[in-house]
Amino acid sequence: MGAFIIDVSKIKLQKVEMEGAEKAYMAWLISDDNAPVSFAMRIFKVEPGGRIPLHTHWYYHEIFCIGGEGKVTVGGEEFILKKNMAAFVPPNVPHSYENTGNENWVFICMIPLKKEVEKL
Amino acid sequence: MGAFIIDVSKIKLQKVEMEGAEKAYMAWLISDDNAPVSFAMRIFKVEPGGRIPLHTHWYYHEIFCIGGEGKVTVGGEEFILKKNMAAFVPPNVPHSYENTGNENWVFICMIPLKKEVEKL
Repeated sequence: MGAFIIDVSKIKLQKVEMEGAEKAYMAWLISDDNAPVSFAMRIFKVEPGGRIPLHTHWYYHEIFCIGGEGKVTVGGEEFILKKNMAAFVPPNVPHSYENTGNENWVFICMIPLKKEVEKL
Repeated sequence: MGAFIIDVSKIKLQKVEMEGAEKAYMAWLISDDNAPVSFAMRIFKVEPGGRIPLHTHWYYHEIFCIGGEGKVTVGGEEFILKKNMAAFVPPNVPHSYENTGNENWVFICMIPLKKEVEKL
């Protein structure tokens, strides 16, 4: 597969389907559906008043905030994540997201697509 | 290692040390130096008139543009990469970057940190 560009302004984000999620939308940008990769890039938009509730999974997150402001809760710690901030969320730790501002909170979130062989 | 946040406005980017690179700066944000990850997040800033010349390596790129505008050349194809666009650059293909606008061109660039076992 060759190089490609995705213009996020031209794609439609989908509602985050998780119980308790509100005003939260996402799209997969790069994954093993469209590229020979072992980690995926997704984009999330959480509208003012929106949230993604506490959840836990085996994969970690590498996050970069594009705009807006929100609170990331990770294992009981709280972080404010604003534009031009990166965040690391470790694997297997409960975490949640809440827009704490007045504009859309937008971030990209990268995840590994499979466990490392040595961790299986 | 626990969760953490990095505020890019508070860190100093380093000059890209590659022959022919001009007005190009970068910083490692998340890597196996500070987190248990198999892919890394870096940030690049290319000033107006700046460039990173053609080079090739085994790892692919997942890129997201934060601001500005530039041209990515990949295997002879040219792509304009602007704010809110994602790009995939395949492995082992010569590629270069050139700011084609009047403001700083800023993008984050994720790379795998090691080859997949099955590709060794």
